[in-house]
Amino acid sequence: MQTAPPLITLLTDFGTSDAYVAVMKTVILRLCPAARMVDVTHEIAPQGIEEAAFLLSTVWPYCPDGTVHLVVVDPGVGTGRRLLAVSALDQTFIAPDNGVLSYLFAEAGGFRAHAIARREHFLPRVADTFHGRDILAPVSARIANGLPLEEVGPQVLDPVRLPLSAPIERPGGLEIHVIHVDRFGNLITDLTADALDRERACVRLGERSLGAIRRAYAEAEPGEPLALFGSSGRLEIAVRGGRAAAQLGLTKGAILNIEYEQ
Amino acid sequence: MQTAPPLITLLTDFGTSDAYVAVMKTVILRLCPAARMVDVTHEIAPQGIEEAAFLLSTVWPYCPDGTVHLVVVDPGVGTGRRLLAVSALDQTFIAPDNGVLSYLFAEAGGFRAHAIARREHFLPRVADTFHGRDILAPVSARIANGLPLEEVGPQVLDPVRLPLSAPIERPGGLEIHVIHVDRFGNLITDLTADALDRERACVRLGERSLGAIRRAYAEAEPGEPLALFGSSGRLEIAVRGGRAAAQLGLTKGAILNIEYEQ
Amino acid sequence: MQTAPPLITLLTDFGTSDAYVAVMKTVILRLCPAARMVDVTHEIAPQGIEEAAFLLSTVWPYCPDGTVHLVVVDPGVGTGRRLLAVSALDQTFIAPDNGVLSYLFAEAGGFRAHAIARREHFLPRVADTFHGRDILAPVSARIANGLPLEEVGPQVLDPVRLPLSAPIERPGGLEIHVIHVDRFGNLITDLTADALDRERACVRLGERSLGAIRRAYAEAEPGEPLALFGSSGRLEIAVRGGRAAAQLGLTKGAILNIEYEQ
Repeated sequence: MQTAPPLITLLTDFGTSDAYVAVMKTVILRLCPAARMVDVTHEIAPQGIEEAAFLLSTVWPYCPDGTVHLVVVDPGVGTGRRLLAVSALDQTFIAPDNGVLSYLFAEAGGFRAHAIARREHFLPRVADTFHGRDILAPVSARIANGLPLEEVGPQVLDPVRLPLSAPIERPGGLEIHVIHVDRFGNLITDLTADALDRERACVRLGERSLGAIRRAYAEAEPGEPLALFGSSGRLEIAVRGGRAAAQLGLTKGAILNIEYEQ
Repeated sequence: MQTAPPLITLLTDFGTSDAYVAVMKTVILRLCPAARMVDVTHEIAPQGIEEAAFLLSTVWPYCPDGTVHLVVVDPGVGTGRRLLAVSALDQTFIAPDNGVLSYLFAEAGGFRAHAIARREHFLPRVADTFHGRDILAPVSARIANGLPLEEVGPQVLDPVRLPLSAPIERPGGLEIHVIHVDRFGNLITDLTADALDRERACVRLGERSLGAIRRAYAEAEPGEPLALFGSSGRLEIAVRGGRAAAQLGLTKGAILNIEYEQ
Repeated sequence: MQTAPPLITLLTDFGTSDAYVAVMKTVILRLCPAARMVDVTHEIAPQGIEEAAFLLSTVWPYCPDGTVHLVVVDPGVGTGRRLLAVSALDQTFIAPDNGVLSYLFAEAGGFRAHAIARREHFLPRVADTFHGRDILAPVSARIANGLPLEEVGPQVLDPVRLPLSAPIERPGGLEIHVIHVDRFGNLITDLTADALDRERACVRLGERSLGAIRRAYAEAEPGEPLALFGSSGRLEIAVRGGRAAAQLGLTKGAILNIEYEQ
């Protein structure tokens, strides 16, 4: 049976005005000419580990088996922090060991992590300021080519895991938190549908009620805020035809409440 | 004869700081591993249907037969608005039925449209907030794989068509309108070359004359505004080495006049 | 032996909010369906020839033999300026003859340049405002397909070379200059490691000393400025966890000094 060519996704805080992403891609293509590459985003705020961790979690459910994810949000570059190659969900994740895989560890149900250590898989010269190019890109290409995970270095049993935002039980409901603001100004919270008695839930923002949970943006009037489960499976606050973040004055970390009707 | 691998273009208002575009691409690659993908732009202003319609019209003349264009500017997501698969110019266009294909309908000279309706072509779970990922991306991939257009759903005879900006005949000339401002500050108008007696035409902005129509930016002095037929075949107002939009204080919708010399 | 499919990089000042880059890519794919394409950046400031020249110099050392680089920063489009196809370092560079290949000419150690002149390699219709689409993209695709360089037009012996920023010898040290500010606010200078007695060097900014040259960002305290040789092989001024450009009030063209200890 013919297999599909390897798929590698890239997620960084490099922006797109320098050549850093391009150089990682040409390193990959030199080693794995058949690779198809998809940019997740390169607009992570510099050193925005949590944001990258969350966005990554919205991608892997839609990737084919064998996908390699290359994540370079790496404020600790050049320090002793480890670099990881992690197998989970029949995919591989290449990233610094700084918590950027925390959602993966929480949601995958099982994983195997190895420290990237064997220099024969790196570029011959390693700059202490750009391990993405000199270590992580070539290792990603070699994994895509079929290098077994255990060949990159010793197993790691204690990768860094950040405490992730989660709903808190309150009398008569839940306290929930905004974890991401998207391009449309939608506020994405830490509440997933399975954590909720949806029929009885009412969403509150301080004194203000956003009412019951809707199914589509269009169930609100233009300009009206609403709550609904968005495409990532999490509760979102949106404004139909507007920007919830600006209109409600909320940003990452903001608190909302779910109240259950009696 | 060996055929080229499928080409799919993507045009959205998703921006590049979230993972929405990436997820559509991985959905496509899972179904159509050989697909080559080209980003038209993802920087359409949220819900900028006309702008997307115009930019799309600058791309298809340069695409090979068989290209599939995936357009997701979809303020009506989750309402009853239809989704379309349109065959025209030996290419296929996948988009919401909200007018974003208006230039195509006006310029193609003939097209066949079908409503996207048959759920077996969708992802198994469809979120009411992201039909781009769950319906349009998989249908685009299947069309690229050879799915016949009529398999997606019933024919549509009355797709939404927006009224498009067009020159208006005035005594002694034409009133023309800015339809797009590009990255360089160039003002692109609704006037195409075939609608004009070029030799006799003089371009006016209120009291100000921009003179005869030039052939290249370099025919003006540095800092001088000029009018010329740009790369899209439409009359543009530019400033050599500068930004016409800022210098002339004009934006989308601005009115200029063509006067014919006697 | 099976060869890898052609690799074409793209570097422009077109931005990503118009369709100009996409159109060049579809022109390339129509002529060279197997091409893999990598975006270097499209965020060069309009007409930023020096910036493009520098970024290009950070990419080619990491590209496979046979790579074709398409560079479109072209304020002289439509004038008599030449277009070049240049062979150097087993790669090919397609660009206007305006100095955007100056780093290549300085660093390659040898090159062969031809003027792009034979219209049979262009698109049938050439707009005087978009030679990137109508001339440079199709010529890039044809070169990637194996068209010999000398087929594009006559040899050029005097391509435009810009004066490049370089360190200046001063009593007891060197005057060096900022040539690029990257996304992280790092200041990249014109000093390469081979031009320096590193052990004795101390970096000064006016009255302020940045001390000895470090090896990694993490050798400084958070918020502290430092100097180190960055991923491009040039001396960079950075602030650990911060933005050197903003914190030090420096931008492109700024002057620093290297003092040698006695």
